Amino acid sequence: MSQNTDLVNKLIRGWEAKDAEAILSCFTDDAVYINVPMDPPNVGKAMIRAVVDQFVGMAQEVQFVIHHSCENPQTGVVMNERTDRFLMNGKWIEIAVMGVFEVRDGRIAKWRDYFDLGQYTRQLG
Amino acid sequence: MSQNTDLVNKLIRGWEAKDAEAILSCFTDDAVYINVPMDPPNVGKAMIRAVVDQFVGMAQEVQFVIHHSCENPQTGVVMNERTDRFLMNGKWIEIAVMGVFEVRDGRIAKWRDYFDLGQYTRQLG
Repeated sequence: MSQNTDLVNKLIRGWEAKDAEAILSCFTDDAVYINVPMDPPNVGKAMIRAVVDQFVGMAQEVQFVIHHSCENPQTGVVMNERTDRFLMNGKWIEIAVMGVFEVRDGRIAKWRDYFDLGQYTRQLG
Repeated sequence: MSQNTDLVNKLIRGWEAKDAEAILSCFTDDAVYINVPMDPPNVGKAMIRAVVDQFVGMAQEVQFVIHHSCENPQTGVVMNERTDRFLMNGKWIEIAVMGVFEVRDGRIAKWRDYFDLGQYTRQLG
């Protein structure tokens, strides 16, 4: 497993530990984190921190289950297929996700997550 | 580039050529093709052919623009990040997609595409 995949897996362990500092330490200062079906993009650590704090605050537990993962040896881009689970108000919310991660100087510079917004919002209902 | 990535790229060229036989030749007979936010899954070549025929029939042109691609050397799983474009009734429909492809014996056995169903249906409007 390469360093970039290690970095992405460290990010995911940070989420599962609900450790905002561990999560944020994985990103470049100018990182762009995009939930593709939602807008606007989260640009820079302050905006990313706000999203992280919101989810870490709302969820009693977080699980990111990785089904498949790969890394392009030429570009260093990492992709994974996951089920992201959030225990909120005693109920598990599950989202089927694929993510793509672009790494620069050992930090995540771009993260885009692809999922169906309706799958998420229907469970919140 | 490995054989599995070659196979996925052959599938995509088949879509862009609107060549149903070329597309179907990439799959195992028992292949499962899932558009994750839609149901049911398309199981077996007859169901996959129906979906292919529907889109190839509706679209005057098809483009699958690959932004990033990678392959897991252990499992042979291929993933890509794409913009899928369909020219329908003189208007381009664009869908932001990530796909994951599981290969068996030189054919695609499982294909799952992740995207936001709302992004697609709003453009059909």
